Amino acid sequence: MEKREYNWLDRVDSPRDLKRLSLDELRLYCDELRHYIIEQCAVNPGHLASSLGAVELAAAVHYVFDTPDDRLVWDVGHQAYAHKIITGRREAFRTNRKLGGISGFPRIAESPYDAFGGGHSSVSISAAFGMAKAAELRGEKRQVIAVIGDGAMTGGLAFEGMNNAGASRKTNMLVVLNDNNMAIDQATGALKSYLLHISTSKRYNAFKNRLWRWFAHVPPLLTLCRRAGNAVKHGLLQKSNLFESFNFRYFGPVDGHDVRALVTVLRALKEIDGPKLLHVMTVKGKGYSPAEHNQCEWHAPGRFNPETGERIASADGRDRYQDVFGQTLVDLARLDRRVVGITPAMPSGCSMNLLLRAMPERCFDVGIAEGHAVTFSAGLAAAGIVPFCNIYSTFMQRAFDNVIHDVAIQRLPVVLCLDRGGLVGEDGATHHGAFDLAYFGCIPNLTVASPLDERELRNLLYTALQSGVPFVVRYPRGKGEGAAWRDEAFERLPIGRGRRLTEGDDMAVLTIGPVGNVAARAVKRAAAEGVSAAHYDLRFARPLDEELLDEVGRRFERVVTVEDGVVRGGVGSAVRDFFDRRGYRTQVRSLGIPDDRFVEHGTPAELYAQCGFDEEGILRAILER
Amino acid sequence: MEKREYNWLDRVDSPRDLKRLSLDELRLYCDELRHYIIEQCAVNPGHLASSLGAVELAAAVHYVFDTPDDRLVWDVGHQAYAHKIITGRREAFRTNRKLGGISGFPRIAESPYDAFGGGHSSVSISAAFGMAKAAELRGEKRQVIAVIGDGAMTGGLAFEGMNNAGASRKTNMLVVLNDNNMAIDQATGALKSYLLHISTSKRYNAFKNRLWRWFAHVPPLLTLCRRAGNAVKHGLLQKSNLFESFNFRYFGPVDGHDVRALVTVLRALKEIDGPKLLHVMTVKGKGYSPAEHNQCEWHAPGRFNPETGERIASADGRDRYQDVFGQTLVDLARLDRRVVGITPAMPSGCSMNLLLRAMPERCFDVGIAEGHAVTFSAGLAAAGIVPFCNIYSTFMQRAFDNVIHDVAIQRLPVVLCLDRGGLVGEDGATHHGAFDLAYFGCIPNLTVASPLDERELRNLLYTALQSGVPFVVRYPRGKGEGAAWRDEAFERLPIGRGRRLTEGDDMAVLTIGPVGNVAARAVKRAAAEGVSAAHYDLRFARPLDEELLDEVGRRFERVVTVEDGVVRGGVGSAVRDFFDRRGYRTQVRSLGIPDDRFVEHGTPAELYAQCGFDEEGILRAILER
Repeated sequence: MEKREYNWLDRVDSPRDLKRLSLDELRLYCDELRHYIIEQCAVNPGHLASSLGAVELAAAVHYVFDTPDDRLVWDVGHQAYAHKIITGRREAFRTNRKLGGISGFPRIAESPYDAFGGGHSSVSISAAFGMAKAAELRGEKRQVIAVIGDGAMTGGLAFEGMNNAGASRKTNMLVVLNDNNMAIDQATGALKSYLLHISTSKRYNAFKNRLWRWFAHVPPLLTLCRRAGNAVKHGLLQKSNLFESFNFRYFGPVDGHDVRALVTVLRALKEIDGPKLLHVMTVKGKGYSPAEHNQCEWHAPGRFNPETGERIASADGRDRYQDVFGQTLVDLARLDRRVVGITPAMPSGCSMNLLLRAMPERCFDVGIAEGHAVTFSAGLAAAGIVPFCNIYSTFMQRAFDNVIHDVAIQRLPVVLCLDRGGLVGEDGATHHGAFDLAYFGCIPNLTVASPLDERELRNLLYTALQSGVPFVVRYPRGKGEGAAWRDEAFERLPIGRGRRLTEGDDMAVLTIGPVGNVAARAVKRAAAEGVSAAHYDLRFARPLDEELLDEVGRRFERVVTVEDGVVRGGVGSAVRDFFDRRGYRTQVRSLGIPDDRFVEHGTPAELYAQCGFDEEGILRAILER
Repeated sequence: MEKREYNWLDRVDSPRDLKRLSLDELRLYCDELRHYIIEQCAVNPGHLASSLGAVELAAAVHYVFDTPDDRLVWDVGHQAYAHKIITGRREAFRTNRKLGGISGFPRIAESPYDAFGGGHSSVSISAAFGMAKAAELRGEKRQVIAVIGDGAMTGGLAFEGMNNAGASRKTNMLVVLNDNNMAIDQATGALKSYLLHISTSKRYNAFKNRLWRWFAHVPPLLTLCRRAGNAVKHGLLQKSNLFESFNFRYFGPVDGHDVRALVTVLRALKEIDGPKLLHVMTVKGKGYSPAEHNQCEWHAPGRFNPETGERIASADGRDRYQDVFGQTLVDLARLDRRVVGITPAMPSGCSMNLLLRAMPERCFDVGIAEGHAVTFSAGLAAAGIVPFCNIYSTFMQRAFDNVIHDVAIQRLPVVLCLDRGGLVGEDGATHHGAFDLAYFGCIPNLTVASPLDERELRNLLYTALQSGVPFVVRYPRGKGEGAAWRDEAFERLPIGRGRRLTEGDDMAVLTIGPVGNVAARAVKRAAAEGVSAAHYDLRFARPLDEELLDEVGRRFERVVTVEDGVVRGGVGSAVRDFFDRRGYRTQVRSLGIPDDRFVEHGTPAELYAQCGFDEEGILRAILER
């Protein structure tokens, strides 16, 4: 990829600058913007493909609307790099997702142009409707625009938003449906077929080629559009009944990479009152051929060589916990006909694509729909199937009630595979799996476990399958410990039992999950410094191993607990409750994620250190008196 | 209402018996069943109106399908009294919602006919699709039926379920949309208008009067229906594009109180493969005139005189916390133009109907859509409005992520009014607000408070409005303490500060919320028995009052904490953490809701006693050594 001078890019420090460009210049600006995103993401990894797909869209919206007075809400927001660069963060973009740098998602606190924060999907319609209503209540004249992907549109929250907003016929609000037929993976579900149908019909193609040109050149058409929305809707534009069922006026589809067409249609829509939806067709990864051809892998590709498209993998040979999960699920499915996999639109992310390939009929990608994923799993379990439902910890917050109401109360044997538990690093505050041990810790009938390493993850999944009860297996994002696990014989682990890893006399360290390996190194170093610490791995956050804790309570006056989760309400807290209940006067120091603030983005190592449970932090706590 | 002999009712102990009746006899049976429900609910309160609306539907489904082999899922399930009575619980129905009696909702553990439990709304499509897929995977021939109300259909989960199920064109699954144009209150939203439109069109009326009769008498039509679903769909039956957008074949609407018509159409649909939806029009409260005329009040009317329709209110003069909330919100809205109210379909339940009447333009009933309610509130707050978003504690579990992601991370000044915190009584396991202090306790940026009495609730709401931060005010279901509150001047309470209510020397009792009044009585009795307990009201679960806790930690070796919430991860646990962190050797005994099981239904008094934090239980704990 050629080194390039940015003639247009460098002139734009705000949407005001952007508006000075002609439409032809705007197109050139978009090309440079795209190039800059590729250049930067090559050295500083981020969400490449989605952002490449939304370059023209971001430019057109800022060109037409008066941001930040008009409110622009990006759903999820990982597609909003162009938006950030346009709105004064061209240079700051070099710090994207780095500790102390700008966030990879819109953040209210970061810029007045970020009208609403992103991270989790499907919130934009609800949030934008709130802003539109607020403007109405305050008597302000303001446009509100929500940009939502077709993936995010499968989230029930988006429909709740449409149902509410659509009933408010006078509220000025534009939903831009950014349709690339992808979530992170290929889109799924009835909605996908529906969108495909309306965007591939003959009328669309005729429309795409000619219609927006007419708009640009025939002002009367614009007037017509303004005055007689219905006629336009039923005549010139594609009629879409799904969105119109919700009282949204539907426009489109339009080519989302034709910035001139986008500007034209957005200008027209600005003049039309009430809730409306513009269907925009885009290509994920647009303009960077490797990404266009493998959109899923290039969703967040890590570092890469922009010339060759070669991705630069770290080569330490260790498997990721995700690899272990994905392969083990296939192994278990071969072992037991009852096993199926459920993922809410994360087959690649959680490695369920292995099962999807091996046994497509036993693997369900249900769309971005965590609540449904869990309740669907409960339905399967009520009828004799053992579903392994894999959801990232931070997204499990969306299925909390489904777990309580549909799984736990009914004691249905759903295996909840809680991926990305604990700090996740660069995705930051919205994505850390910080609260799960606390929010699942208090729910009756749940078993909650976390493995020390890869082999234990494999065995916990096996144990969960055998258990016949609701079972949560929580493990972190990323690389494992290098433990052998592939093709190992399965071992059933005793439920609610932990074990001692290291003997010691002076005090005890209690850990849960892979952070135990970090603690083990600290314990070793403490021994070298003259403090002999016993190290116990609890393995189960619930039920707690009372026999083990009795041993610890009897033997030690001082305990340090370590968990990659929030301290308040966490496992350390439950241990302290137990000691107090039994009358042990053991003092417990709990290390974990603080609850006095949200932890922001940075490398995992940086964040562990910040929270004080990296190796040094644990060592300090052990040595403390 | 005349005393009545049950000629037909007494003959039916199972769906097998039901199937022996002729269609005319089935109609007579339904009349008796309805009468029995009214008679029983008059003396043993329950969800009357919804169940009256689903009598013929329940009878027809069991008449046509082979339950329990065919799986019948009732959404929410409070409309399923007829179902319970038909399926062997005619006599047990006299114990409905009583301690040790049958649940007011379907429960897997209660009967094989209860294919899936109910309580919370919008889960049925997801659960039923799970069961349908399970049957497919296991090679079983089985019908699966989900019955869902038009209110529950506004929940996003229902759309997530439709999106997923609709893509599975061969899966045999019937959704019955029980459309009575009501949630607990009047239905709202775009979907409501849409359903109203399709059910009031001319075609519907022609259809209603004639079509299903033809079906019954003209077998070829049935055959046509089986073989050519499309032709039927587009020709004889109303075409509905919303559901068809999701690949569901749409049938209806049909009169849900014409049991003959229902049987006919269900028989026909049994033979049609794939996902399909039958739109049934019913009347909430059907057949009991007072309920038909005031459907909302008769949703769960309490005891009543069945002859006169007079409701039997307990007359102790105390206001409910809900009255305090409703009136205070109106007062605050008058005081401050920024104040608005948001409720997910509970204006009567939470008393926001007072605001709805006084200032309809500043009150938003957003449908059964808790997630949207919170994110919509966040959007309003981001644009200068102060939303008071009222959600029952148990339903707030559905908006957990929205609170974290859209409110707390962004520090938006949304006032989350957490109604029905703690044990709620007869609604049982699915409805207790048991977990909120734990699941909100660990979330950064949230302030979480609970008032001691009515006046404090009023002042906390006022304090929340002034605070400019995300603020949770949690209070219980039902009657207050009799404290004067109406028209009292507002007082701003110091955030994060509790206070000492009673001085004492021997030990301390720490409470949060109205359970503090129960503890106060126990403290008084303990004094009479020679134990002098200091009583502190924490008022804030977060942030904790560290000054107060320092005083307690310094002065006392023994503390009892009391909260109407789960003990693990609760306030008592946080207090213990604090003491340990500060090095106080205070022993803390925590009273509250256990986490080793879900608490079932019964009167609040019975359940408090069961959980050990009624007056006697607290007294025991104070006197304990």
